[in-house]
Formats: sequence, structure tokens, C-alpha cells
Amino acid sequence: MHSDQLSNLSLFLNAPLDLSFAELPKPEIKDDHQVLVAINFTGICGSDVHYWRDGAIGHFRLKDPMVLGHESVGTVLAAGAAVTSLKAGDRVALEPGFPCRRCSDCRAGNYNLCDDMKFAATPPYHGTLTGVYAAPADFCYRLPESVSLQEGALIEPLAVSVHGVRQAQVTPGQSVAVLGAGPVGLLCAAVAKAFGASKVISVDVRSARLDLAREIAATHVYLARDVSPQDNAAAIRELADLPRGVDVVIDASGAEASIQAGIHLLRMGGVYVQLGMGRDDCNFPIMALCLKEATVRGSFRYGPGDYDLAIQLVASGKVPVKKLISRVVAFDQAKEAFDLAAKGDLIKILIAGPNEDRGVAT
Amino acid sequence: MHSDQLSNLSLFLNAPLDLSFAELPKPEIKDDHQVLVAINFTGICGSDVHYWRDGAIGHFRLKDPMVLGHESVGTVLAAGAAVTSLKAGDRVALEPGFPCRRCSDCRAGNYNLCDDMKFAATPPYHGTLTGVYAAPADFCYRLPESVSLQEGALIEPLAVSVHGVRQAQVTPGQSVAVLGAGPVGLLCAAVAKAFGASKVISVDVRSARLDLAREIAATHVYLARDVSPQDNAAAIRELADLPRGVDVVIDASGAEASIQAGIHLLRMGGVYVQLGMGRDDCNFPIMALCLKEATVRGSFRYGPGDYDLAIQLVASGKVPVKKLISRVVAFDQAKEAFDLAAKGDLIKILIAGPNEDRGVAT
Amino acid sequence: MHSDQLSNLSLFLNAPLDLSFAELPKPEIKDDHQVLVAINFTGICGSDVHYWRDGAIGHFRLKDPMVLGHESVGTVLAAGAAVTSLKAGDRVALEPGFPCRRCSDCRAGNYNLCDDMKFAATPPYHGTLTGVYAAPADFCYRLPESVSLQEGALIEPLAVSVHGVRQAQVTPGQSVAVLGAGPVGLLCAAVAKAFGASKVISVDVRSARLDLAREIAATHVYLARDVSPQDNAAAIRELADLPRGVDVVIDASGAEASIQAGIHLLRMGGVYVQLGMGRDDCNFPIMALCLKEATVRGSFRYGPGDYDLAIQLVASGKVPVKKLISRVVAFDQAKEAFDLAAKGDLIKILIAGPNEDRGVAT
Amino acid sequence: MHSDQLSNLSLFLNAPLDLSFAELPKPEIKDDHQVLVAINFTGICGSDVHYWRDGAIGHFRLKDPMVLGHESVGTVLAAGAAVTSLKAGDRVALEPGFPCRRCSDCRAGNYNLCDDMKFAATPPYHGTLTGVYAAPADFCYRLPESVSLQEGALIEPLAVSVHGVRQAQVTPGQSVAVLGAGPVGLLCAAVAKAFGASKVISVDVRSARLDLAREIAATHVYLARDVSPQDNAAAIRELADLPRGVDVVIDASGAEASIQAGIHLLRMGGVYVQLGMGRDDCNFPIMALCLKEATVRGSFRYGPGDYDLAIQLVASGKVPVKKLISRVVAFDQAKEAFDLAAKGDLIKILIAGPNEDRGVAT
Repeated sequence: MHSDQLSNLSLFLNAPLDLSFAELPKPEIKDDHQVLVAINFTGICGSDVHYWRDGAIGHFRLKDPMVLGHESVGTVLAAGAAVTSLKAGDRVALEPGFPCRRCSDCRAGNYNLCDDMKFAATPPYHGTLTGVYAAPADFCYRLPESVSLQEGALIEPLAVSVHGVRQAQVTPGQSVAVLGAGPVGLLCAAVAKAFGASKVISVDVRSARLDLAREIAATHVYLARDVSPQDNAAAIRELADLPRGVDVVIDASGAEASIQAGIHLLRMGGVYVQLGMGRDDCNFPIMALCLKEATVRGSFRYGPGDYDLAIQLVASGKVPVKKLISRVVAFDQAKEAFDLAAKGDLIKILIAGPNEDRGVAT
Repeated sequence: MHSDQLSNLSLFLNAPLDLSFAELPKPEIKDDHQVLVAINFTGICGSDVHYWRDGAIGHFRLKDPMVLGHESVGTVLAAGAAVTSLKAGDRVALEPGFPCRRCSDCRAGNYNLCDDMKFAATPPYHGTLTGVYAAPADFCYRLPESVSLQEGALIEPLAVSVHGVRQAQVTPGQSVAVLGAGPVGLLCAAVAKAFGASKVISVDVRSARLDLAREIAATHVYLARDVSPQDNAAAIRELADLPRGVDVVIDASGAEASIQAGIHLLRMGGVYVQLGMGRDDCNFPIMALCLKEATVRGSFRYGPGDYDLAIQLVASGKVPVKKLISRVVAFDQAKEAFDLAAKGDLIKILIAGPNEDRGVAT
Repeated sequence: MHSDQLSNLSLFLNAPLDLSFAELPKPEIKDDHQVLVAINFTGICGSDVHYWRDGAIGHFRLKDPMVLGHESVGTVLAAGAAVTSLKAGDRVALEPGFPCRRCSDCRAGNYNLCDDMKFAATPPYHGTLTGVYAAPADFCYRLPESVSLQEGALIEPLAVSVHGVRQAQVTPGQSVAVLGAGPVGLLCAAVAKAFGASKVISVDVRSARLDLAREIAATHVYLARDVSPQDNAAAIRELADLPRGVDVVIDASGAEASIQAGIHLLRMGGVYVQLGMGRDDCNFPIMALCLKEATVRGSFRYGPGDYDLAIQLVASGKVPVKKLISRVVAFDQAKEAFDLAAKGDLIKILIAGPNEDRGVAT
Repeated sequence: MHSDQLSNLSLFLNAPLDLSFAELPKPEIKDDHQVLVAINFTGICGSDVHYWRDGAIGHFRLKDPMVLGHESVGTVLAAGAAVTSLKAGDRVALEPGFPCRRCSDCRAGNYNLCDDMKFAATPPYHGTLTGVYAAPADFCYRLPESVSLQEGALIEPLAVSVHGVRQAQVTPGQSVAVLGAGPVGLLCAAVAKAFGASKVISVDVRSARLDLAREIAATHVYLARDVSPQDNAAAIRELADLPRGVDVVIDASGAEASIQAGIHLLRMGGVYVQLGMGRDDCNFPIMALCLKEATVRGSFRYGPGDYDLAIQLVASGKVPVKKLISRVVAFDQAKEAFDLAAKGDLIKILIAGPNEDRGVAT
């Protein structure tokens, strides 16, 4: 299949709640290290929905129409002269943020902290809900045969989760509580288990999500109640038979009550990772953190090796990402897919690329 | 000097603001690993003042009369049969908390997190404002000749500061901001410099303290203003020519405005240590922490090696603890010393032990 | 069952190849933190065989008759007044080395490096091939119901392996080569897999052992050939499809050819752990280590948390220690068991304690 | 000064012991991120001498004539369009190895391990004993005013030493032995001291070098004797009053006897870094390493942040690199400088660039 024959129809966000389809000029290989990728599937992320609804996330603000989407899997169409790792026809998970490679953070192995990051669907950079996408070859990860294209579209949120669990430095035998059971929280639970956690406790306010958590990875689930953070924490400790507290807490909710309970849940010397996004500030039990000598660490996107491990966890069967795919729709159903995603009842919706066989919609 | 000839007069806190002197039965060596120590000097700590004023700190609450004091230096009177490291006449800095040595935290090298810690002047354990004190030999650290007894009384707060700087994992060439310039904050600044920090920024609301910070260690000082935490953070970045932010922030104040500014002050991937005690909860910029992938860590008391390094830093002249000693008073002036300490104008007041030469008072 | 009714028959090594049975005075609880344990089973370790044959290991030299054995499981008979974690009847894996708890290594969490370690069956301390043994309660680990007594006797070598894999800091997705497939090497392979290694390569000169390695954990096995270390290393890289080398190598053989091949096997920046004991010195590719920036780390016995994790790995079914038990013999067959062990055809032989039901022998 | 007016005379190594001067085509800025640098001074490294004498180091082998030199300081002539950190006239220390920025090692922050490294004066890449050199801007580090050009030529070997001390994870209060007192060993001693080492022990077989070590940094010096490694190690322990051994050993000699003594010198749990290059294999006390749970780590060139810290250590006066400069010669004396360097009596010889004022020679 040659790039010339392909549509480059793209889903633009023009303004809050204003989506439209339009052809984007087809990209070309700009340097010897790039590849062209035909997009097969793209998952809708909470941040896509956020931009769609509000036109902004934090200090990122939509100014001009922007193509949405960044959780994508594709097929290599062509590779630059210097590319040896990939060839046309390879199926790849796309890592959608391209750092400068030259600043002190990039050189020190923290490229996710790069000030010059060009991240798909973060203004002003177009996203991957498009036909053909150009990317540096080293940000395209070949999928082994045992991983399907649709599973490949889940590698991005899985890499977010891998990064979070790595930030928590989970080691075998530890107890891990994951607060929030949306896609990333569910995947964190699965990754924590794959890292050897002996107890994985999923917490959410939606019992349907907890059922899925248990199916995927959780050894214990807890339906958060409308009580004090201390009381929720005490109930979780009792449920999991961890009177001294939990080794690791990963917050994938961003909710204040969850953050507070998370700190109270920790054992002395425990580790807490903030992965979920929420309001800028919250009331926080800083003295509990201090007296426990707890460590609190942020987790932002993904870094070196996270995509590789994510793919390996799927290929080995340790993380059943397939169970998170709620619906797959054709590209021309993309607007409806956003309506659906905004309702919040489904876990993960995939949108087929505009060149993908139309039989995908269900 | 034999233990029998010594007074064991002690300073009891009976209830908030109610201090009295009384003889405590003289301690004896209870096991082969203990030593008896005649107390020479004891510094007054903010926590002593806190108990004196409120009768409680957090969930620690005075029930029965308790001897105050835990920042002490003494002279070994006698040593148990198994003690080889110390002998009568040795001058020692006292580490005033004795862990169980058997729980998982003790065995893993985190004895400061021990649930069974017996800590001087933390209810129900008597403190060191007394004549003779019994302690395990391995919690008594011999002072080299180059360290005076009065300097030895500063080893405890210096060990707190060493622990905090170690929790921050300060490495040579980093920039370090220390928020708060009380005794521990001042010592953190000096320790950070001894760890090779290239810029040490002290922040406080009292300019006299900042003068001392500059004299001891700070390359930059900043008088915190009554503006937003973001604005204070921006002003400090500009002052220190660190547009991307500070590598390490150590909060030794416990104040909400300081904590907030500290997070905003950090560079991407920076480290923040909470050392100062304050209100249980505070409004906290959790999303800034998340997006920066910052690490926030509590620091509580001290652990393995902290006393050793503290003594070495004084012996080598790297940390001029002497400059912090504002006043030395005789034991019978102890009540007045608490009045003075509570005013907050002096940095550190030492109280001589009841057997110390009466000529010390000034 | 009361301690008074129990035999304390013990297996003494009097001199090289000179074993005898004799009653040892029955131990009593010497301090409030001790427990008395009736020994159920004891595995024969390579070091036991070594002492039996040579009367010495390294600078440890048999002077007086000494009871052998240190890989034991037992049942609590009585507990000191301060013991809360155990009670009579509890089945426990014994950690057989008791550190001083007071030196800088003990306090820093490295008690296995304690200079005053009292280790069972290391001169001059008697071992556990005896009837009743006294130990500190915190060195006796209760077995969950799902772990049998005979499995419990394998916890000691499994803890050695857990410690080795932890020294290697194995993380999920890594490739790990284990050189040597004796009991500890086999268990290292299983632990590495439990830690999430994606490729586990077992190497030995005995193909029967490699079959067991594959059954337990190995994804690849390699029968070491009589070629240069470089050639063996190249063959292993090819076998495992790791052209850049292996992330982690654990040598559980102590053999010079294996050590050399191990360094050549490593990737740039890889980690090598020396676990196996062998000759004091060997020819070593130090420049390969230097240019690769490899890390080489020794692993000696076990430390904080290793027994806990070992038990959990057995309880969870992740490490099938049962497959390593080749033979179980009655206590009065202990001499014959040493003859058998010395032949080296069996993996692990257990000797029942003198009070264990005589029906165990096979 | 414009690039067109400059000589690009270069010092070529044609074959072992065969040096010649010739003009190299003047480089141009090839991409927007490059700068052109006029070379001011270049230090002669042991590896330059090695190539000159043998035509090879390890598997790197001279095939075609190659320009020597890689320890250089220069002045920016021109900067590519994307360069914001540098401008014409800036004085810069050159980091002379350019990694691919795309492989897993580069992306993970270990660019010194990059398989595609282009390193100056390592075949087939020309070195910096030339007039004008093109380099990526982020590998050129601006010197502050307080650092002279000649000091700037020492930043490369100082960065090697910084990297070695960082590999050793030296922390304040530790004891550090540096084996070998050539330029890198001397600088390691100075860096260890700057990192807060309380005892710095320099060891060499040349007493003149030890005098310089003491002048620069060493608290103790030891003239290695022709006795067993164990005996040398014991003598050093006694000299430095470290009966339990040294915390950190850095071998900057590459000599077998030194390596062996280094391992015996370590305390339990100590860290040893192999920095010096020598014969591929050596007899090595592997069991001592194992039983001590020592860590041995290679150190190869330098990585993220090493140049920055090296410059800061010179600028702050902590590392007096000037004391190492034995001789500065004009470019046309370069052949004689190699003869001189090969004799080994001088510490560091600098060769002025061909466009540098001729008055430099002494």
C-alpha cells in the first residue's frame, strides 16, 4: 500500500465541542531517521475528551484547529535512509511525544521532562486521529506477532501505567493500592501484579470498574465510601489485612479525597505516586507524610524503556489489555465516539484510522 | 567522679507551663551494653517548648510528669561489661531515641521508623535534663578532642539536618533552597554546602536569621514577602539565577506558605524534603508536583550514620555549630531559659547539667 | 509436645570425614526474645559437605567437634515472655545467623555483613542437625498453611537466591543468565522469573540439571562447552537472541570459566552478581568490565526481608521448591546422607530431625 | 576572527611513531545545532601516546592517517541557526564524543555506552589537534570568566575523574583510596575531596606524584611497595587508621597489583571503581569481593552532567587543575611534546592550537 493512495482525513477540534473532519496535507519523511506510519487504530484518552469539552488542559490552550488523538497503532509505509530497525509493513505502537534530545533532561534520560517536547494533540501539535503520521523511527515500536493491532492501541496508556509503577519502584512481595479504576488505574493494577506485588488493592467509587479490576489483577477491591480519608484508609488496611499500612499507593484518580486517603493508607517509609490529574491544589496531609518519612513522586507520561516493557507485558500475556476495549468504531463515527466517551460508562473506545477497513465498527 | 557523688536533679514538666525541679532515682546499668552518662549540656529544642506550652505534640500527650530535654552531651561514668567502644571519662553526644532492634524497620536500617522507639522527652519517656542518664553504648558517640562539649550539645539538631539533606540526596554542584532559618534550617544550609551544593539559598521572614544564614553557609538569602507562593518562588529563582528552578528544596519551617512556594520553586524532576513540623494538613500544589515529576520526601529524626557524620562535620570545621549557641545557663536557671526560648529571639540556648560547674551561666 | 520429652541427639563433625551422633545439652530460653524450636527437617548444604570433607571453608576452620546443619524448619516449643509474633505449635523456617544488632552494619540494615555474626555450623557455633534449637524470635518465620514443612526446609537456600537476585536488582522485562544449576542456581532462575525476567538462561555442564532448570523456570538452557569463555558467551547470546548481551548475570557456580564467560556475556551497563563460592582468586576480564561500565556485586547469605519474600514466593506457587527435594532420610541415616550428598547426583537431601516421625525415610 | 583566516593545520598519526603536520579541509556547520570552534589548547592524553606508540588501543586500530587529540578548549567561531546557548567568541571546553542520541543507551541517559559513538582521535574519527573543529553545541561548555583557557583544557580529564567518583557514589564523610597518581588519579583525589570524603588516600609507586597528590587533596599518601597485595592493603589500612577497610577504592592505574590490593583494601560492603586501563585480564580476588558483598563498577569516559560539574569544581576553586599543567608548547612543537609525554616525567602537557599566539611555548 503506497502513501499516495491513502486518505489523510483527520479529526480536527476547532473549538470546544466543535469537531470536524478535514484532509490534512500528507506528511513526508523530513529526515533520514523518520518513518511514515498509516494509523490503524487510536484510543480516546481522557485528555482528548478534556480538550474537546474545555479547549484546554492546565496551561495548554487550544488556539488554532488541532487534530486530536495520541494513543495510536499503525503500519509503517516508508522509512528514512538511516532507519534500520523498521521497514514498510511493520506494525508499530506510536510513542506520541518527540523530545529535543539535546537539553540536560533529554541527555540525562528524562526526556519526558523536556521543555521542548512536541506531543501529539497538545497545542500546537496535531495528533494522530489522521491517516498518515510521520515520526522518528525510535519512537515507533514494532509489535510482535502475538500482539494484535487493537491491543497495540492500548500500549500508550499501558506505558503511562508502567511509568507510574516504575516511579513507585514496586518490588516483588509488596502490597500496592491503586486509587481509581479508569483505564490507567486498571492497567496500573495489572502492571503492579506483573511486578510481583503480593497484594493489589483497587479502589474506586464505581463498582463495575472494581469488578473489572478484580478480573484483571486486583487481589482486593474497595468501594470508596463517603467518609473521612482516615476512615477509608482504615477500612482498606483492614480489608487487606495490612495493619501497618500499604507499601505503595498509586493515585490514578486525581481526586482530593483519594489523594488524602492514599497518604493515610501508606505504611512508615511507604511510596506514593501521583499519576492522576485533577485540580491544581488540594488539601494534603503533609505532616503524615513527614512523620512516616513517606516518598511522594509525580509520574508524567513515560520515558526510556516504558514502551518496550509495555509491549512485552502484553506479548507475554501478563497484562490483558484486550479486556479494556469496550468499543471499536469506524473513523466516520469519531464524533459520536467522543459523545460516548464523555458519558464515562465505557472503559476504552478505539477509532479506526480513515484507511482502515470499514468493517470494524460494531 | 563517681556516680554516687552526683546529683540527679531533673527538670520535670508536670502540666502545661508547670515546670519543677526534683531528684529522679539515679539510673543503673541494666544490661552489659549500656553506659551511664553524666549530662554536661542540653539544648532546648522547639519540641521541648511545644510540650511545655501545650502539653502535647500531635498524638503524643503528656499524662504524668516527665523530664524534658533530648539534645545532650555528657561524660561517660561507667560502662557495661560488653562495651568496648567507650570508657569512663569519654565525652559523648547522646542519640536520644532507642529503637527495638528487632522489627522489620530496625532490621532494614530504618530504625527511626521503629514503632517501639523509646525517645527521650516523648511521653512516657523521661528526657535528658537530668544529672545522670543510662543509654545503650552504640547510641553514645565519642567526641574527638577538636569538638567541645558545648558544640557536642548541637550534634542532635545537626543530625536532624544531616538526615534531611541525605533524604534530599544532595550531590555536588546542585542548587539547594532551605526554607526557614531556625536552628535546623540554618544547619541544613551548612550541611547542604558541605555536601557540595553550589548555591545555597536561605529563606525566612526574619532578616536577622538570614544574616546568620549568610554568615554560616548561604550564597543567597531571601526575605519571604507577603505575596503568592508563585511570586515568592519566581523572585527566588530570579535572585539565584535559576530560571528552570532549584534542584532541591528543604522545608524547615512547616509553614503552609513556605511549603507551597517550595514546590513551585523546584525544577522539573527536583526533590523536596519536608523536615519542619506544622499543621497536620495544608493546601498543596499537587499537580505542580505531578507534572514536574518531583519527589517529596519526609524526614523524621535521624538514622544510621547521621550522628557520625554530624560529628565529623563539626570536627572538620565544615559546620560552625558554635555560631548558633546564643546563651548557656546553669541548671537552676532552666525555667527562665524556657521563658527565653519561647520568645523566639535567640537561636539556641544550652542548659548546663546539674553537676556541671556553676560558672557556666552568663 | 513438651521440650522435656524430646531427644536432643545431634550430628557432630569431629574431624574431616568423622561424624558421630551424641546428645547435646538441651538449650533453654536465655532471654525474653528467644524461642525454642524442635527441628523437623534440615537440608544438606554444599558448605556442610565441604566442612565434612575438609574441616574448613576459607578461614573458617573446625577446631572442636561441631554440630552440622543450618537449612532447617522446625516447630515452636516455647516462646520467651517478650515474644508476640510466635506461639508454641507454629511451624517456622529458621534463619540460622544471629547478628549483633549494634554494629554500624547491623544498624544500617546490612546485618549479613556483621563482624559478630553467630552462624549455625560455622565454627565455633553448633548447627541445626539437632533436636531442639534456641533462636531469637525475629529469626524464625512462621510458615503459612500452604507451605509444607519439607518445603520450609528449602527456605534457607531460597533466601540465598532471593538475596542474589536482589543484589542484581532484576527488574521486569530483563534478561537474566544464571551460571550453575545446583540448588541455589536453580532457585535463582526461578526467583529471576518471579521478578519478571523475560528471558532466563540457565547454564551448567550437567544436562540433567538443565532439564530441571527448564522445568522450573528457564526459558533457555545452555550446556557449557570446553571452549573459550568468549565463545561460550557468544553461543549463549546467539541462543537467547541477545546480540548486545544479557542484562544480568548471576554466577552460582564459583568456577573460573563460568565467571569469565559471565562478564563477556553482559551487555553494556549490565550487572553481574557473584554468588557461587570457589577459589580465592581467578583470572578475570577486568577491562571488559571497565569498558562496559558493568557492575559486579558480591552476594553473601541474606538480609532484611529475604526470608519473608522467600516464603511468599513458595506460598504463592511462584517458586516450586518441592521439585528440588531429591530424598528425605531419617536422622539416624544422616551419615549415609552425607555420603550421598558428596556424590553430587542429587539436588537436595533433607534429614528429618531426631524427634520427627521415623516414617519419613524412603 | 573569521574562520576563513584561520589555519587548519593538524597533527596526523600516519602509523606508529609516525607523526606529520598537514592541512585538513576546514569543517563547516553541517546542521543547525552545530558550532565551529577554533582550538586554543589541547592536552596530551595517555591514550594519544598509546596510539602514537602502538597504533592501537584494544580493538581500536589505526588504519588510515588520523588527527590525534581530544582534550581541548576552544573559542566559538560561528553557531548554527538553532543554537541559542552559544555565540561567537564564547570560550568552551569540548566534550569530544558525539553519541547517536537515538539508541536505548542514549535515550536512557547512558550516552557514553552508545555503540555509535563518534569519539575524537578514536579510529576512524579525527581528533582535535587541529585548527578548527565542528561540534554539536550541546557538547561545547562555556567557561565562566574565572576559568582560564589553559584550565579549560583540563576539563576533559577532570570530567573522566568526576565520572569515576560518581560511579563510586562517594558521599560526605567516606574514606576514599585512589590507586595511581597520574593526571586522572590526581584529579580523582581532588574530586573525592570535593565530594566530602573525610580521608583521601593516594597510592602510587612514584613519590613525586604523591607529593603533588598531597598538595592537591590527599590526606594520606602511600608509596606502594613490592610486597603482596594483602600486605600493601594492610599497610594502607594502618596508615589511614581504617582497620575495617576503606569505603571506596578508585583504581586509576590499571595495574594488576594495584587492582588486587584495592579489593583487599575495601571494607565490607565497600565500592571499587575501575577507571584505569591496563591488560585485558588479571588475577583477581573474586572471593574477597563476594564475601565482602563489595560492588565493583567500571567507569568509561563521561556522561550527563560530568562536564558541567567539572567546570564548576574548577570555577569554585575546589579542584586546582592548574597545578597539573607541567608544560605548554606551540603547535609546531607537537612532535617533541609527544616524545616528552612518552617519558612520563611530566603530569600534563598542553599543545597550543595552530592559530594560538606563538608566545605560549616555554
